[in-house]
Amino acid sequence: MKATDRAIAEGILFTDQYQLTMGQVYFRMGLHEKEALFDHFFRSYPNYGMHQAGYCINAGLEWLLDWMETAAFREADIALLRQQKNHVGKPMFDEAFLKWLKNDFNLQRLSLQAIPEGRVVHPNVPLTIVRGPLGIAQILETALLNQLNFQTLIATKAARIRESGNGQLMLEFGLRRAHGLGANAGARAALIGGADFTSNVGISHVLGYPPKGTHAHSMIQTFLAMGEGELEAFRAYAEVYPDDCVLLVDTIDTLNSGVPNAIKVFEELQKKGHKPIGVRLDSGDLAYLSIQVAKMLNAAGFPDTSIVLSNNLDELVVWQIATQIQEEAPRYGVDPDHLLQRLIYGVGTRLITSNGAPSLGGVYKLVSLKNNGKWVPAIKISETPGKTPNPGNKKVWRLYDKRGNATADLIGLDTEKPADMDQLTLRHPLQAAKSRQMDGTKISRIEPLLVDIFKDGKRVYDLPDIETIRQVRQADVGRLDPGIRRLMNPHIYHVSISQKLWEMRDGLVRSFRKNPAK
Amino acid sequence: MKATDRAIAEGILFTDQYQLTMGQVYFRMGLHEKEALFDHFFRSYPNYGMHQAGYCINAGLEWLLDWMETAAFREADIALLRQQKNHVGKPMFDEAFLKWLKNDFNLQRLSLQAIPEGRVVHPNVPLTIVRGPLGIAQILETALLNQLNFQTLIATKAARIRESGNGQLMLEFGLRRAHGLGANAGARAALIGGADFTSNVGISHVLGYPPKGTHAHSMIQTFLAMGEGELEAFRAYAEVYPDDCVLLVDTIDTLNSGVPNAIKVFEELQKKGHKPIGVRLDSGDLAYLSIQVAKMLNAAGFPDTSIVLSNNLDELVVWQIATQIQEEAPRYGVDPDHLLQRLIYGVGTRLITSNGAPSLGGVYKLVSLKNNGKWVPAIKISETPGKTPNPGNKKVWRLYDKRGNATADLIGLDTEKPADMDQLTLRHPLQAAKSRQMDGTKISRIEPLLVDIFKDGKRVYDLPDIETIRQVRQADVGRLDPGIRRLMNPHIYHVSISQKLWEMRDGLVRSFRKNPAK
Repeated sequence: MKATDRAIAEGILFTDQYQLTMGQVYFRMGLHEKEALFDHFFRSYPNYGMHQAGYCINAGLEWLLDWMETAAFREADIALLRQQKNHVGKPMFDEAFLKWLKNDFNLQRLSLQAIPEGRVVHPNVPLTIVRGPLGIAQILETALLNQLNFQTLIATKAARIRESGNGQLMLEFGLRRAHGLGANAGARAALIGGADFTSNVGISHVLGYPPKGTHAHSMIQTFLAMGEGELEAFRAYAEVYPDDCVLLVDTIDTLNSGVPNAIKVFEELQKKGHKPIGVRLDSGDLAYLSIQVAKMLNAAGFPDTSIVLSNNLDELVVWQIATQIQEEAPRYGVDPDHLLQRLIYGVGTRLITSNGAPSLGGVYKLVSLKNNGKWVPAIKISETPGKTPNPGNKKVWRLYDKRGNATADLIGLDTEKPADMDQLTLRHPLQAAKSRQMDGTKISRIEPLLVDIFKDGKRVYDLPDIETIRQVRQADVGRLDPGIRRLMNPHIYHVSISQKLWEMRDGLVRSFRKNPAK
Repeated sequence: MKATDRAIAEGILFTDQYQLTMGQVYFRMGLHEKEALFDHFFRSYPNYGMHQAGYCINAGLEWLLDWMETAAFREADIALLRQQKNHVGKPMFDEAFLKWLKNDFNLQRLSLQAIPEGRVVHPNVPLTIVRGPLGIAQILETALLNQLNFQTLIATKAARIRESGNGQLMLEFGLRRAHGLGANAGARAALIGGADFTSNVGISHVLGYPPKGTHAHSMIQTFLAMGEGELEAFRAYAEVYPDDCVLLVDTIDTLNSGVPNAIKVFEELQKKGHKPIGVRLDSGDLAYLSIQVAKMLNAAGFPDTSIVLSNNLDELVVWQIATQIQEEAPRYGVDPDHLLQRLIYGVGTRLITSNGAPSLGGVYKLVSLKNNGKWVPAIKISETPGKTPNPGNKKVWRLYDKRGNATADLIGLDTEKPADMDQLTLRHPLQAAKSRQMDGTKISRIEPLLVDIFKDGKRVYDLPDIETIRQVRQADVGRLDPGIRRLMNPHIYHVSISQKLWEMRDGLVRSFRKNPAK
């Protein structure tokens, strides 16, 4: 796409048409400047086929804010909307509405509360709360969902792979299979969720991380086509990178050619005073091969060189590799724990596309509207009970038990103060019969999760760098019970609603059922 | 991401680090200016769980060319690479290499042949052939794959959904669940593959299509929160869009509230001389509901208003809806064929993420290298026989039978002229025992598939607009046997290699096996 076209397609018009057509209805009915409250949340964890996640990692906020600070209806955008014709050839949008978009539509007029990036988050909990003029808050929906859905999706997948890799170094390699430019947001989210580095050069520099990578099969092929061999290719690589030598050993035959040649080159490097870094395996039975490779490297006096594994890795494959190594390595005289500690996981396609669940179903729902100076909770009755969003102006708290582990998230009215209560009622969000009382003495901490991000036209939140976000993620994951972190069939984390929120919602539903027309 | 950061992350550094580290090896060994040939192809059709595609739709070329025309190592990019440090704190890249990148690296120095966008394509067939200096062609790999893999993936999914929708109008709605900015490339590819319009406003304007959309549940909720009802919301919408009135009828209760209210508003519109357009269903049993809705609309005298369906549609869901309508509609006195013809499919998440197969495994392989003025075929022996790419400088032809249907794609040496041969040998690409002779009289046409795109520094190909690409796709899909187009378990299209290519590859493999070191 040309640069001028990108300014159109990635600016304020990066939205769905119905946001604009609705916006015009609000404008014509005089509702566009009414203060509204929208909640952003997701309804269920990503389900990768056989195994559903037990938690998500929140991500995407900073880039959303960057977008909000620059996106606006420029003259060029207005000109395009002016061209839109309806079914009978008349303009789709009135001049008065276009004038409002041009002069009064400003995303800075919105206030935002959000759960910070890197935090562990759960279904139905408002992750972002947007407050401001209805016409503006409505039009933000699509871009907000696009950015937050995707980064949270990928950060979550990355956290799972990190979990299964038991904290071993993890590299993001997915650029070539990513969804176009989404690759960059995906790489950022992968770093937040658990990858230590990415092969993606540009985004690494932008975020302040060194990009990682060595060489491909094509380098070996080049030397073969020149009438030389794998050994010459390795030597050339080692000559250029004597202190950073990671050799891809599976172009010809891993155990009979690649590794013996790599060992030769490593010995030559060592004689010259350099420390070889490692080898990479990109095909075959990675568990079996890594045992054999470790054995050969050990025997040659390189017990500490890394073994980088890649080829369609995901959390299950990594977990299986580790399991197989534990079982099989001793048979070949290789210490499994030592081997596992020298592994590095290069994770590409299945991370950057969130294979198995390539989307997160985040939604953005009107929950309250100010009418005659008073907030009125908005409700959407759905035929699927689980799809009725929690109405009204709300807050969210995380409750920690005496061990310091997160035990539940509580959604309540923004007038409530659970920290002041001796006893908390935690209601199941859907089932009336299910509720539990929690004694205040069993709770070690009640933490509000939402923070003010943007308020009265100003950013009131200092954006943390990725390293800080990573630490937030690590600490939050560490405060989850192991059952919640489990890859397969995890224990379900409690997301509860307060007694007052329950009563308010229940009242609204009842009165609505009595008189749905009003 | 800030604009200055985007210039870094989306320019020439939108690549994997190993392209640069390999590039430096080639540079240091004096290989970087050697002429090389890389093939881009994919190895297998997307497999969406139960049902693998039987063909793909090629897409992405134009945007790749746009990128290639602007991406270059600017001073800012070089400065970042200069900062990269290796394991012992020394610069990762030499000044001499950086100088070459700055002064001599120019993507315009590459030549490109490609199969045009919109064409039906198959595994192992070179879709793009890149020729030029090794160091430059190598570094193109990641960005090329990123762009072509994704658009081809989405165009393919769209073609399948169009197929199952039997040509009914199809709208792309996936922006909010797309992978970040990949949404725009995805929307373009969806249009190429089969969507008629998209809700994505910006990309619609860029590509010259009117964006489509009506209103969301939130519009109804807004009126409810104001103390009014669904009917008032519908009336407001109809007042603003009397000639474009599509009403979302499932916010409260589709059959008991939404449709009766919509009919009231349609009657009011009709009295004023306007033609109501339709209703949209976004939840529930879409097949059953559309029958009931059709019955109600018919009874009210609106037999031609459209019924837009949405909610996690994909090719199987659309096919099931159509099947169920065929079976169930007569029972309610509704003509199924008439109903099917008023349906419009709004397809979101599952199209834009290619749910079930969220990546296409396109690869980019060195196949030939010029040494001392002579092209030397490059080979990569893989332990998986299917993964040995076809070496050398090649051409691709599509053979049509007497009915005009595509019967096979033939990959051969670029010196071959199958049109001049009375008898063609079509060899199975992997199995030596499988080959067939094809009599020239049985072939109605032999069509070369690759066209020159970029040659000697100049674009030699006129880029078609999306509408033309759509026609190409429609014509190509129409020339496939129904068995290939089948959604489930399709017949396998023949991709064959010529006798000469077989012999050349076989000879290379044999001589390589004898002496792998050389």
